[in-house]
Amino acid sequence: MIKIGVIGYGYWGPNLVRNFCDCADTTVVAVSDLDPRRLQTLCARYPAVRTMTDYREILRDNEIDAVAIATPVFTHFNIAMEAIRAGKHVWVEKPLTRTTAEGEELINQAERRNLLLHVDHTFVYTGAVRKIHELVRSGSLGQIYYYDSVRVNLGLFQHDINVIWDLAVHDLSILDFLLESQPEAVSATGMSHVPGRPEDMAFITLFFHSNLIAHLHVNWLSPVKVRKTLIGASQKMVVFDDLETSEKLKVYDKGITLSLAENPDAVYKELVGYRTGDMWSPKLDTAEALQVETEHFVSCIEGREKPITDGSAGLRVVQILEAASRSMAERGRPVELTRSLTAAWSHS
Amino acid sequence: MIKIGVIGYGYWGPNLVRNFCDCADTTVVAVSDLDPRRLQTLCARYPAVRTMTDYREILRDNEIDAVAIATPVFTHFNIAMEAIRAGKHVWVEKPLTRTTAEGEELINQAERRNLLLHVDHTFVYTGAVRKIHELVRSGSLGQIYYYDSVRVNLGLFQHDINVIWDLAVHDLSILDFLLESQPEAVSATGMSHVPGRPEDMAFITLFFHSNLIAHLHVNWLSPVKVRKTLIGASQKMVVFDDLETSEKLKVYDKGITLSLAENPDAVYKELVGYRTGDMWSPKLDTAEALQVETEHFVSCIEGREKPITDGSAGLRVVQILEAASRSMAERGRPVELTRSLTAAWSHS
Amino acid sequence: MIKIGVIGYGYWGPNLVRNFCDCADTTVVAVSDLDPRRLQTLCARYPAVRTMTDYREILRDNEIDAVAIATPVFTHFNIAMEAIRAGKHVWVEKPLTRTTAEGEELINQAERRNLLLHVDHTFVYTGAVRKIHELVRSGSLGQIYYYDSVRVNLGLFQHDINVIWDLAVHDLSILDFLLESQPEAVSATGMSHVPGRPEDMAFITLFFHSNLIAHLHVNWLSPVKVRKTLIGASQKMVVFDDLETSEKLKVYDKGITLSLAENPDAVYKELVGYRTGDMWSPKLDTAEALQVETEHFVSCIEGREKPITDGSAGLRVVQILEAASRSMAERGRPVELTRSLTAAWSHS
Amino acid sequence: MIKIGVIGYGYWGPNLVRNFCDCADTTVVAVSDLDPRRLQTLCARYPAVRTMTDYREILRDNEIDAVAIATPVFTHFNIAMEAIRAGKHVWVEKPLTRTTAEGEELINQAERRNLLLHVDHTFVYTGAVRKIHELVRSGSLGQIYYYDSVRVNLGLFQHDINVIWDLAVHDLSILDFLLESQPEAVSATGMSHVPGRPEDMAFITLFFHSNLIAHLHVNWLSPVKVRKTLIGASQKMVVFDDLETSEKLKVYDKGITLSLAENPDAVYKELVGYRTGDMWSPKLDTAEALQVETEHFVSCIEGREKPITDGSAGLRVVQILEAASRSMAERGRPVELTRSLTAAWSHS
Repeated sequence: MIKIGVIGYGYWGPNLVRNFCDCADTTVVAVSDLDPRRLQTLCARYPAVRTMTDYREILRDNEIDAVAIATPVFTHFNIAMEAIRAGKHVWVEKPLTRTTAEGEELINQAERRNLLLHVDHTFVYTGAVRKIHELVRSGSLGQIYYYDSVRVNLGLFQHDINVIWDLAVHDLSILDFLLESQPEAVSATGMSHVPGRPEDMAFITLFFHSNLIAHLHVNWLSPVKVRKTLIGASQKMVVFDDLETSEKLKVYDKGITLSLAENPDAVYKELVGYRTGDMWSPKLDTAEALQVETEHFVSCIEGREKPITDGSAGLRVVQILEAASRSMAERGRPVELTRSLTAAWSHS
Repeated sequence: MIKIGVIGYGYWGPNLVRNFCDCADTTVVAVSDLDPRRLQTLCARYPAVRTMTDYREILRDNEIDAVAIATPVFTHFNIAMEAIRAGKHVWVEKPLTRTTAEGEELINQAERRNLLLHVDHTFVYTGAVRKIHELVRSGSLGQIYYYDSVRVNLGLFQHDINVIWDLAVHDLSILDFLLESQPEAVSATGMSHVPGRPEDMAFITLFFHSNLIAHLHVNWLSPVKVRKTLIGASQKMVVFDDLETSEKLKVYDKGITLSLAENPDAVYKELVGYRTGDMWSPKLDTAEALQVETEHFVSCIEGREKPITDGSAGLRVVQILEAASRSMAERGRPVELTRSLTAAWSHS
Repeated sequence: MIKIGVIGYGYWGPNLVRNFCDCADTTVVAVSDLDPRRLQTLCARYPAVRTMTDYREILRDNEIDAVAIATPVFTHFNIAMEAIRAGKHVWVEKPLTRTTAEGEELINQAERRNLLLHVDHTFVYTGAVRKIHELVRSGSLGQIYYYDSVRVNLGLFQHDINVIWDLAVHDLSILDFLLESQPEAVSATGMSHVPGRPEDMAFITLFFHSNLIAHLHVNWLSPVKVRKTLIGASQKMVVFDDLETSEKLKVYDKGITLSLAENPDAVYKELVGYRTGDMWSPKLDTAEALQVETEHFVSCIEGREKPITDGSAGLRVVQILEAASRSMAERGRPVELTRSLTAAWSHS
Repeated sequence: MIKIGVIGYGYWGPNLVRNFCDCADTTVVAVSDLDPRRLQTLCARYPAVRTMTDYREILRDNEIDAVAIATPVFTHFNIAMEAIRAGKHVWVEKPLTRTTAEGEELINQAERRNLLLHVDHTFVYTGAVRKIHELVRSGSLGQIYYYDSVRVNLGLFQHDINVIWDLAVHDLSILDFLLESQPEAVSATGMSHVPGRPEDMAFITLFFHSNLIAHLHVNWLSPVKVRKTLIGASQKMVVFDDLETSEKLKVYDKGITLSLAENPDAVYKELVGYRTGDMWSPKLDTAEALQVETEHFVSCIEGREKPITDGSAGLRVVQILEAASRSMAERGRPVELTRSLTAAWSHS
């Protein structure tokens, strides 16, 4: 039984507590939050869990094996570093840190102490994304042409981070998982509509090797909620609509065909044709993503599985977030991404 | 009765012939096309119309008052210039020309001869876009924050122009009509997936004065067809879904509210709140856009109306298309747009 | 503070317990269920609530003011009767009883003892149905022509009752609330597809006075879930789609117009024309229906409000359920409904 | 080349003329209509076709091989009978006749003279219905449980026939084709909302052998247009949404499973479980139904194919329409259908 301490009981913390409690191999022994009222709510539900306002009490508790950090982004680095130094395995909310430098240091420290640094890229553990991963990896889609996502809704405006760090981070973590490839450059544009606040809408283009391109479209100021991703490829194409209750994933047997044709001037010329076949919507695993993720977390601590969303995955996402913010400040000027050894894929 | 000659009877020409025939004030007297088989099809339907493969016959016909040019983009300039010199009013398909320089010369020549140069920005004449225009102009939406359009489908790949010149031109013409304002800069990204062909997908950001931003998303390689535009504004927000048969337009009484709040540290801070009210889907005029446009064309020739989509409107759109293509070639580097006197709004 | 005992902690009981706990004016002091494992689940969440397997313990507790009965339909009569005799106010799940005779007796007993008999017609307390009620009652829809509902999904097959008693009961309770009028006759058809089981799909037509008609379409064996109601009327028409997350209600300014026209034979004849205007989707109260209902229950006990879904409402619904089942057994033969004094509207 | 005369050039006639003109094996030589203005419209489009107001001129023309009758229902019998007596093959719009007796006489007369009597059950020739037929006939759906169709919209009110004869006839012709089985009884309910007019909405239940049931839901007074059919079966289930532009057909691998379970009282009891698998949307033939049908008509005249929608199919549909109208007049009283030899399946 792995003993967990949860730091931060705001928006996401309650989901962590519930899942770590429901998991047969973990138990939540302590939860900290700055706000005592939140801890009261927790106590009503989970009378056996100890609560405190100072997370350092959790770090000092030798009985605790791992901590889950669900605090604001700017605090991730310090708390995670203290936790690693206290010998705890770490589960940290996305994005991993505010900067690449911070991310690299966390990874190094965890490695040195042989501790797990897990980043909560929740979407990677959903039935839909795991099915897309299966389709991409099996080669049945053919060569991937593009990933094109729209993730917009009304709210929730953040104080300290722009919409890229809040919403695009989801797609970046999905992309990192699906493509196992880091983009070469990023161009981003965006705008703030509330004086003194960070950008509330943004458009990000990622250039990968060859002709693979990704585009992320995020907005806190949309009258309607959209969660829709198109994946274009040479053999099949995928539409992922996360707001559909059933049929979240549709796989289209559609595409273009190229053929040589002799034109009137006796010059051979490539003709573009169109291919349309059946559509297929595979059944998805409906297990809650966090449940799948907590079980994976346990397996990684016990050495039975290699981590899927480890510190390196978190770092790669932070690198793109940094570059995108820089590009956005310059109205889309492309920013090249340099490869960091720390950010290399651990399982490839 | 205005006598019309139509040059080009390919994809769009038949729609022009049908509408100029149905209009009470115009009649089609001659149609030219390089392909005699197309002309045969025409003859079966409209036995009274004269046909020819050389458009110059139309220009030489003194009986003809106006010509409609529905040929490939790269031929627009030459044919339109000859038509103006022959003293004809000109209706030309979008985009007006391949370059800004060509567009400026056409405008100057037409003005000098007091002839009408009309660009077929068809969408401007739809019931939906006219209703949006009414909402924007009346001020009932409040301050416009953004225009965000997705226009994707499978095909039709063009040989000589990229997807921006084919699909984004629609949104640029709508924007020009709605905002009556030229962007300051444009950043565009895109990719080609067929060797040797122009870009088949592209993402364009337009920066207007203050915090108004537009984003256009065009793609020839999508498994599904989407025609959806969001317009964000301070008072109300609009969703325009052109694939809906009824309820194409939805106006949401939604938005954000700003208020000052004293936070725990006794510092006044602006709080973002959310406002949600009714949704309203106005009834739209269902008249065919081309019918409305042909009637407007007649009114302009007869001096009863000021042209809405004249050469200047066509030129402003071409300027952005040029700039976007340049930015796309440099992975999103922003390109500033300079103001041209020729491109000024004629009715403002 | 009204002290509540809840009898039955299966599918719906937990929702009752949660809402009676959250309500400021009620508190749950005891819960009974035949299955001790369910009670264990309850204890984990609500350690202060007493639990027992015998509901009679609740009835004997003089401290308890009211009981909520969430047991299988066939047990409603006996438990409710005992509760009334024990001097408790009663909240009973729908449908009220298995027969009209049982319903009448419950109403009489409760009246004699001056106790509240509340039937949990939950849908009546949703924001959507309350808004429709407002539209119907205000007269803004005009004369109601029809109510036409489709309520289908896959499962959950019941053992002891057919699909009419399980699903149509929802629409019957909504109709009773909206129309304040009892149908004159009912014709129902249906079919069972599992040997030895009650009907899994059914179609019910209700004939009201004049030309008002209702049709209910219920099915446990549908591949897709549908919850859609059309309300036709002379001035406006309503579409209620309960699966929509926003825009559940759409009000169409549509209808027919009648005019006299002289036809070629000089005979005056009524012409039917069509009227199409805007569509409007009103904002709805998003409070949970059960929360609204528990507050109403309290007000009724305290004499501040007249009960909306009292025993008479429950009885009127049971009368139709009985008649529909009889008609269904005879392949649609119409069954007339007789008026019962007990089933009269209490507030009209 | 089969020479066709078309009688009636109102709503549907133009589609017949266009398709018989486009078909390589047929040519339209004459068209009659009572209204000379309609014939003028025709002349403008098809100058080679002879026109007349008296259809008897067509019947007298010995050059003409077949006539297509697209006149009001009440005229079908007389015109078709005269055409058969004049030795013409007959294509008649649905429904075949106003009464069973008339339909039987037409069939007998056509058989005696060895002439083709084709009823235009257009839907049978659509790609969607042909695909459903393929699925039903192949057995891949398993045992059919039900056919459940909703066909509603605003308008067009008919003068002389009720909504069943106008809209339900489509589903009845589809059912006749799919099931190759006549129902045993029918129960129908409906209502008129315009004084002096026939019913504008109706609900029809058809009882087939064993536990197969069909329900048709038709309405001229709906604020929204719906064209949706569910087909429940033991192995797979089908949803046919004719308003979808792509994905009109969805095949669900869903259903119920039955298993024996020992319950607490040691009694074996059948348990109902649910099975959910992938969804599949097959590509459909997008050829226009009327084109497929005209080619089939030619093949039948030339003896190369057996007629699919012959007089017997038309008669079977009329029998149900008659029975449904009778049931509707008595508020759903079930009406049994007697088997007629004339209405037997010609190809079984």
